[in-house]
Amino acid sequence: MGDIADEVQPKKAFGWAARDTSGVLSPFTFSRRFSFFLFMLSFILLVYLEAFWKLKWFLILIVCRATGEKDVSFKVLYCGICHSDLHMLKNDWGNSTYPLVPGHEIVGVVTEIGSKVENFKVGDKVGVGCMVGSCYSCDNCADNLENYCPKKIFTYGAKDLDGTTTYGGYSDIMVADEHFIVRIPDNLPLDVGAPLLCAGITVYSPLKYYGLDKPGMHVGVVGLGGLGHVAVKFAKAMGVKVTVISTSPNKKKEAIEHLGADSFLVSRNQDELQAAKSSMDGIIDTVSAPHALPPLIALLKTNGKLVLLGLLQKPLELPVFPLLMGRKIVAGSLIGGMKETKEMINFAAKHNIAADIEVIPIDYVNTAMERLLKTDVRYRFVIDIGNTMKSTS
Amino acid sequence: MGDIADEVQPKKAFGWAARDTSGVLSPFTFSRRFSFFLFMLSFILLVYLEAFWKLKWFLILIVCRATGEKDVSFKVLYCGICHSDLHMLKNDWGNSTYPLVPGHEIVGVVTEIGSKVENFKVGDKVGVGCMVGSCYSCDNCADNLENYCPKKIFTYGAKDLDGTTTYGGYSDIMVADEHFIVRIPDNLPLDVGAPLLCAGITVYSPLKYYGLDKPGMHVGVVGLGGLGHVAVKFAKAMGVKVTVISTSPNKKKEAIEHLGADSFLVSRNQDELQAAKSSMDGIIDTVSAPHALPPLIALLKTNGKLVLLGLLQKPLELPVFPLLMGRKIVAGSLIGGMKETKEMINFAAKHNIAADIEVIPIDYVNTAMERLLKTDVRYRFVIDIGNTMKSTS
Repeated sequence: MGDIADEVQPKKAFGWAARDTSGVLSPFTFSRRFSFFLFMLSFILLVYLEAFWKLKWFLILIVCRATGEKDVSFKVLYCGICHSDLHMLKNDWGNSTYPLVPGHEIVGVVTEIGSKVENFKVGDKVGVGCMVGSCYSCDNCADNLENYCPKKIFTYGAKDLDGTTTYGGYSDIMVADEHFIVRIPDNLPLDVGAPLLCAGITVYSPLKYYGLDKPGMHVGVVGLGGLGHVAVKFAKAMGVKVTVISTSPNKKKEAIEHLGADSFLVSRNQDELQAAKSSMDGIIDTVSAPHALPPLIALLKTNGKLVLLGLLQKPLELPVFPLLMGRKIVAGSLIGGMKETKEMINFAAKHNIAADIEVIPIDYVNTAMERLLKTDVRYRFVIDIGNTMKSTS
Repeated sequence: MGDIADEVQPKKAFGWAARDTSGVLSPFTFSRRFSFFLFMLSFILLVYLEAFWKLKWFLILIVCRATGEKDVSFKVLYCGICHSDLHMLKNDWGNSTYPLVPGHEIVGVVTEIGSKVENFKVGDKVGVGCMVGSCYSCDNCADNLENYCPKKIFTYGAKDLDGTTTYGGYSDIMVADEHFIVRIPDNLPLDVGAPLLCAGITVYSPLKYYGLDKPGMHVGVVGLGGLGHVAVKFAKAMGVKVTVISTSPNKKKEAIEHLGADSFLVSRNQDELQAAKSSMDGIIDTVSAPHALPPLIALLKTNGKLVLLGLLQKPLELPVFPLLMGRKIVAGSLIGGMKETKEMINFAAKHNIAADIEVIPIDYVNTAMERLLKTDVRYRFVIDIGNTMKSTS
């Protein structure tokens, strides 16, 4: 390692970005942790105000802010493709800014650390999930729930503390405050571990928080995609009986024989729904398309919990009678806090939980997005950044 | 007391019943615990089958079933008018049968007990709430949650175990299995205590179950009616900070000065809603008319709980994003189990919690229903059955 100046200069990075709502990704060179625009703007302002000499420390501050002493830089080796990436690329949620470098299931090997980094060293296998910052001072942050901090900073497409835009993991290097860096245990391969940083924690957290992790319980998992397939694995590892609920009867064999689910329910089959009525302690609903809640609520026992994980924009119809008649709840959950993410990744390593993935080169990414739109993947695309991301500049 | 035969003969009762969906109540004479129709049907069947002498025990059984050895009979002194009574009178929920004698906030004094009654004696002050029976064998019953037993028997308009129809408390006597009888503590006057048997337990149970009973918490109460006004009192007695949320600004003085709420929020005032955003641990929503959930969900902190108590027939629109973004839940709750009802009534007596009532004579009941429809009552009508219910037959 060199000194601090060597370690934490603004980082030149190379990745793939979308330039507009077409969502088409193409090569893109950018800086992390330093905004040339902001720097020049300040410089011009100070010169204009004839205050350059008096306030030159302000410019120094901008550069220093770019060089986080708690920052960890790592060479990205793999990055999973989350369904949110697709939504963000196409500005489905109305908050995307371009150029947009997606990716929040990022793993790699530490290359540099800031002077005050305590928990990581060069060579460590690490990852970053959906967040790279939060306020550190609100009740949620104090409760290790940075994911619910109103000022949380998403890994890409967000404004960072220094005013720069955050860019995700479809890129060769990543930099983040060590608080948001997760150590990947040695026995968890990086490629299959990457999706756990979003998909894994997104299902692990509600299973724990809503108390659906008790051996002998019966939990339904709606939707067998990126989230659903790891939900089955986590729930089974917790000793829970799992029923996969899906619109596709042809997923039954896979769900039971490959993923280890105990049973399978076709959500359009009234007889199967009737037979499973009032049998589940909870349901992890991973579907992000509009769907009917009443058949799911009917599957719950008294005190049963239906947990929605899909970021649906339009409201769903909520039947009130069935909620009251069984003291049932419809709940939400969004990824998880950093403490719990670290707990999750260790749990996964201990129980040999990994995502089922299809590894792709970066230049396949636009095709992968088209296939993802058709849910034509079992169950997660992971980009082999380390071997296929080459700067063309 | 006489012997069993004296104690528990089928009970001739007198009350007021609706005969059709007009919901108009008028005097009605009936029997409790004995169906003359069933008895005669069996008699005729046995004679027809020439089996009368062989199977005469069957008829004896019908009479015996009518004479519960665990039954407690009591003279009804007061009965509260719940908003559900109005719905049932008019068959709003599609399950009413006529003649219908409403009333499930029933209090009085024990007049007779069955031979195996253990916990009550003649002269005790007692009450009956929304239920008079359940299966005693399901998981819910085992968990003291008879209110969620799929075979629970509502106090009126339901089929009892013996095949007879249940009739409510707008009547001179009441009979129920002692399991469903609640002792009214001496320091709780019967008239103001009656509404607690439905309204009281309906708000007490979710405050406890959803953990909204911790001192220092902040709970919203939506709707200042029969349920809402006792919700404020219970929550305050638990040490909770209470904000009343209402469409009517003119209820503010009453809510704060009379009921003891800490603050008041007009639900149509965007500035007030904005100022209280993310400030509440939970909301007890007593409104049984369609209303918007998003403004209420926005009032909740992370992990906040919106508990619906109003029996709404039509679905509500559920926004999904805000649920996920704050790990919030929308939940239901329906009255409470018998163990908790007894706990609630003792808590109320200890903390001097009583309903605010307007006592009316039985012949005012139809007018009261019209006023109730316009929510023109502060906050519960209670019928003075003891002094005004006179048989005209």
